[in-house]
Amino acid sequence: MQFQLTDELIEKVEILIEDQNDKELKTLLNEYHYADIAEILDDLDNEDAVYVIKLLDSETTSDILMELDEDIREKILENLSTKEIAEEVEELDTDDAADMIAELPEARQAEVISYIEDHGHRDEIQELLTYDEDTAGGLMAKELVKVYETWTVAGCLRRIRGQAKDVTRVHSVYVVDKQDKLIGRLSLKDLIISKSDMKIADIAKDNVDWVNVNDDVEDVAKVMSKYDLEAIPVVDNNQILLGRITIDDIVDVLKEEADKDYQLAAGITQDVEADDSVWELTKARLPWLVLGLFGGLGSVFIMKGFEEVMETVPSLFFYTPLIAAMAGNVGVQSSAIIVQGIANDNVKGSLASRLIKEIGLSLINGFALAILVILFGLLINQDTTESFAIAISMMSVIVVAALVGTFVPIILDKRGIDPAIATGPFITTSNDILGIYLFFVLSGLIIGF
Amino acid sequence: MQFQLTDELIEKVEILIEDQNDKELKTLLNEYHYADIAEILDDLDNEDAVYVIKLLDSETTSDILMELDEDIREKILENLSTKEIAEEVEELDTDDAADMIAELPEARQAEVISYIEDHGHRDEIQELLTYDEDTAGGLMAKELVKVYETWTVAGCLRRIRGQAKDVTRVHSVYVVDKQDKLIGRLSLKDLIISKSDMKIADIAKDNVDWVNVNDDVEDVAKVMSKYDLEAIPVVDNNQILLGRITIDDIVDVLKEEADKDYQLAAGITQDVEADDSVWELTKARLPWLVLGLFGGLGSVFIMKGFEEVMETVPSLFFYTPLIAAMAGNVGVQSSAIIVQGIANDNVKGSLASRLIKEIGLSLINGFALAILVILFGLLINQDTTESFAIAISMMSVIVVAALVGTFVPIILDKRGIDPAIATGPFITTSNDILGIYLFFVLSGLIIGF
Repeated sequence: MQFQLTDELIEKVEILIEDQNDKELKTLLNEYHYADIAEILDDLDNEDAVYVIKLLDSETTSDILMELDEDIREKILENLSTKEIAEEVEELDTDDAADMIAELPEARQAEVISYIEDHGHRDEIQELLTYDEDTAGGLMAKELVKVYETWTVAGCLRRIRGQAKDVTRVHSVYVVDKQDKLIGRLSLKDLIISKSDMKIADIAKDNVDWVNVNDDVEDVAKVMSKYDLEAIPVVDNNQILLGRITIDDIVDVLKEEADKDYQLAAGITQDVEADDSVWELTKARLPWLVLGLFGGLGSVFIMKGFEEVMETVPSLFFYTPLIAAMAGNVGVQSSAIIVQGIANDNVKGSLASRLIKEIGLSLINGFALAILVILFGLLINQDTTESFAIAISMMSVIVVAALVGTFVPIILDKRGIDPAIATGPFITTSNDILGIYLFFVLSGLIIGF
Repeated sequence: MQFQLTDELIEKVEILIEDQNDKELKTLLNEYHYADIAEILDDLDNEDAVYVIKLLDSETTSDILMELDEDIREKILENLSTKEIAEEVEELDTDDAADMIAELPEARQAEVISYIEDHGHRDEIQELLTYDEDTAGGLMAKELVKVYETWTVAGCLRRIRGQAKDVTRVHSVYVVDKQDKLIGRLSLKDLIISKSDMKIADIAKDNVDWVNVNDDVEDVAKVMSKYDLEAIPVVDNNQILLGRITIDDIVDVLKEEADKDYQLAAGITQDVEADDSVWELTKARLPWLVLGLFGGLGSVFIMKGFEEVMETVPSLFFYTPLIAAMAGNVGVQSSAIIVQGIANDNVKGSLASRLIKEIGLSLINGFALAILVILFGLLINQDTTESFAIAISMMSVIVVAALVGTFVPIILDKRGIDPAIATGPFITTSNDILGIYLFFVLSGLIIGF
């Protein structure tokens, strides 16, 4: 069943475009789902993609456009007239329509909006454009099925037939009072299995979940996934029903969040993809590398300060990459666990108990690793005092690194900063410097220099 | 609207349990959603949690149990009799029921199953238990609404009233032929807006998406999120309809996948949470740390080999943590981008073009960083040849590190190994060793030792 994008298919499409064989091209593409056609267009060059978009009906092309990579969509929209874009927008649900318009240069936005013929649709899109994209308002669609509590089941079904035509998927029917305040919900199933003369007020469920239009999208995602909701109504501060958010949008939010956190942990500051330009990728990668470089130069300074030790205990210098690596790895592990815990709301208990746990944990890990270092020392006939000094200093570095990795994200989070920023290069770099400094100071105390 | 777990609430519950004030405790808890009660129980001690579970109706407690942390659920189930567990299982949908039973010790599984009174439910659960948990079969539920193509809309609605009582949410009505082969789908909306004497075959959509019962859950997640599906039917090799998967289960799969990849990148080998035991956390963290340690010991060996350089160019040794850090950071960045690209199917083009791009990208980054190193050298009055040697070697190390970071995941993926394993400690460690070795060899060539 699954669609598989092949080089043959791309080639076939390219040849049909070159031959301007519109009829066969249409027949070929109409076999595919719009999401599949979007994959095909992602692989065509820009001119060909525009050709296909202009060829197909706007009912299909609007969906294709929304599935495309953002950069490719941008390029295609540049090649469409304002009127053509307005036609695409007419076909889209309000949430997608608003997203597409928001991506246009400001000058074109107003022009496209003025071309939308359906004035109801236009007003709804304009309302959606006023919300911040990271809030429930920025994610919601205006399409929903709404019934008044005073209606009967039969009257309700009759009117739903009208409303539902505009709604791709009816998850819930929302029940409002005469001020349009959300007071309950119903499923289509409830309607179908109820007697037709019953009042909506009698069969509606009043424990309806909702989010405020200004709630953060991440909070919306948490609520929806916690309560296993497939759609959630959005209300304003007066509880007036404004729109609804569906789970497919939340799936996209969750994926973007996960990708962003993963990239932050890997030291990439912007949302980039493997196929972005070298320049985009450099902008995303260089900042953290520069931070890492400064950290490394910091280590150079510290080690210069211990230069005279080189003659007496040269082997300490051989161990510095090991110390830096351990400090970095332990710090990243600790911070990753805490960052995930914060995201999933399962970091419980007092700071003191967490402190004791983290020290215990890192002592166990540190001890196991220290034994390996001492064994390695025996193997290469290293001076025993030196081996012990290295092992004990490393153990201390591991404990400190774990504490830094644990508490930096907690402190950031308490101050309202995204703790995910603390994983990766930030922790690695600060732990590198701190670790190497501690290593030399402690070794000095033990060996005596 | 949002539930906020407070210390006061926990305390209140604990006091009511201590006083055995069952009536008030029930009244209090009945105000909350089962997912909220699960959060409360996660915070109670085990004995109290069991008390609450035994107090409430199994209709609610079965849902609460499914929302609990796995370890806490396990402990509570240990304290319930086989018969009590069977009662919980009766209330659950087949997919959750099978998951709960699968978590029990093998000896108890058969006993619990034998206590299930509804034999249809029992047989369905037993069927689900035969599927691998990472396949569509392991994720699907047997509850669905199925109609035959020969029925009329009116007859269909009548029968759906019967079937739908067992199905929490009806996403789609699946249309089958008389051999129970899946041939189409309908939405409830389609049924409601169609004339009652029409034949199902006439209004059914035949472009129904489906997955095979043996498909990998990650592939199911990809299909559902690509086509924005809220439910997908599952069929066997003969296209016989076996069950359906809903998007809420996919949301959980996506979250688990993201958490796992994030942890792998941070050098954590098992699914752990901040609140797991020290022993669990050690098991998850120590393996990668040991790998990192061996890497570090490898660097010790390499640097020992260049010991005589210490007298002539001591500063090289001060730069080793910097070199290791840059090699590690660049490698992690490159691998993270590729791993994400592979996961999202957007790594396109030939290996050769990727090679050229990655070299270009790392040359730009490396060059910028090299200039900073040379400036730093001027600042601390370092010998110019040394500064140049360090800068140029570092640049080469960065290029090599980027190539390793890019191609190791690609090669792993081609061999069917999860490329996510290559981000994090694996790349960091191998790049550390390789980087330091290259650094000394290249600096030696430039300075001449």
